[in-house]
Amino acid sequence: MRVLGIDPGLRKMGWGLIEVSGSRLSHLANGVCESSGADMATRLLSLHEQLQAVVTGHAPEAAAVEQTFVNKDGAGTLKLGQARGVAMLVVARAGLAVGEYAPNAVKKAVVGVGHADKGQIAHMVKLQLPGVALAGPDAADALAIAICHAHHLQSAGQLARAVQGASA
Amino acid sequence: MRVLGIDPGLRKMGWGLIEVSGSRLSHLANGVCESSGADMATRLLSLHEQLQAVVTGHAPEAAAVEQTFVNKDGAGTLKLGQARGVAMLVVARAGLAVGEYAPNAVKKAVVGVGHADKGQIAHMVKLQLPGVALAGPDAADALAIAICHAHHLQSAGQLARAVQGASA
Repeated sequence: MRVLGIDPGLRKMGWGLIEVSGSRLSHLANGVCESSGADMATRLLSLHEQLQAVVTGHAPEAAAVEQTFVNKDGAGTLKLGQARGVAMLVVARAGLAVGEYAPNAVKKAVVGVGHADKGQIAHMVKLQLPGVALAGPDAADALAIAICHAHHLQSAGQLARAVQGASA
Repeated sequence: MRVLGIDPGLRKMGWGLIEVSGSRLSHLANGVCESSGADMATRLLSLHEQLQAVVTGHAPEAAAVEQTFVNKDGAGTLKLGQARGVAMLVVARAGLAVGEYAPNAVKKAVVGVGHADKGQIAHMVKLQLPGVALAGPDAADALAIAICHAHHLQSAGQLARAVQGASA
């Protein structure tokens, strides 16, 4: 199963795609969409086109987007929200359910603790996806989100099988 | 020229369409898109489909979206931002430039002062668009945004003509 992770941002939107086969994870692709344009609408349109190309080109089967906001900065949070809205929409229009994880949940899934800096996340992403070449910190975060979602889907699958086994 | 105003919101997104002919404004249509769905992605998708139908059905030639955020409430601002991102994207994908106005600018254009309650806005919208039947307060706000954008476009047009006249 191909799982797409997205680290939303207006200036830079990271994305990472992994293959999940049972309990094994492997890297497929990662990158960063950068918005260009003088005004907000043009920038959102530019992000939309780039992310749409990723989804069309890689046909993910599951997706997750980080859930975050900028504390005490309404204007910053609004900008982030707009970029995140575009990301959610692209994935939803492809017919995929969208997992949402808080930054702490992503860090805990990848690093083992809820607080970790970007360097630690990139390090652990490289360990879990051998041979990966990271397009940047935003792409590393996106792969971490994909890994977090993969763990969640694996747990849900094991739970479903356990329930089936118990009722069989 | 058909001008579309949008009052973005996740639960309810108001829209209003007016015809601008010289200095005359008239009402064409207004309504409210209500999001449905259990999760954020489904709700954004639902808003997208409804607003896309408005744009496809009415073919506006200019558009504006209110620029606002929820003070001291990061989660609320993020939700609003996501809905706003979807609104901006629908309009931008239709090839329209998107005007952005702060709530105070909209109120000043319609009521004459920067501070006005929803009742005053609805009252002044009805005065300026005789015969309008409002679909609700969000639709009234959206028509106010369209009126504000129309005034802005009229001023810009007058300025352009004055400059042309001076250089002729």
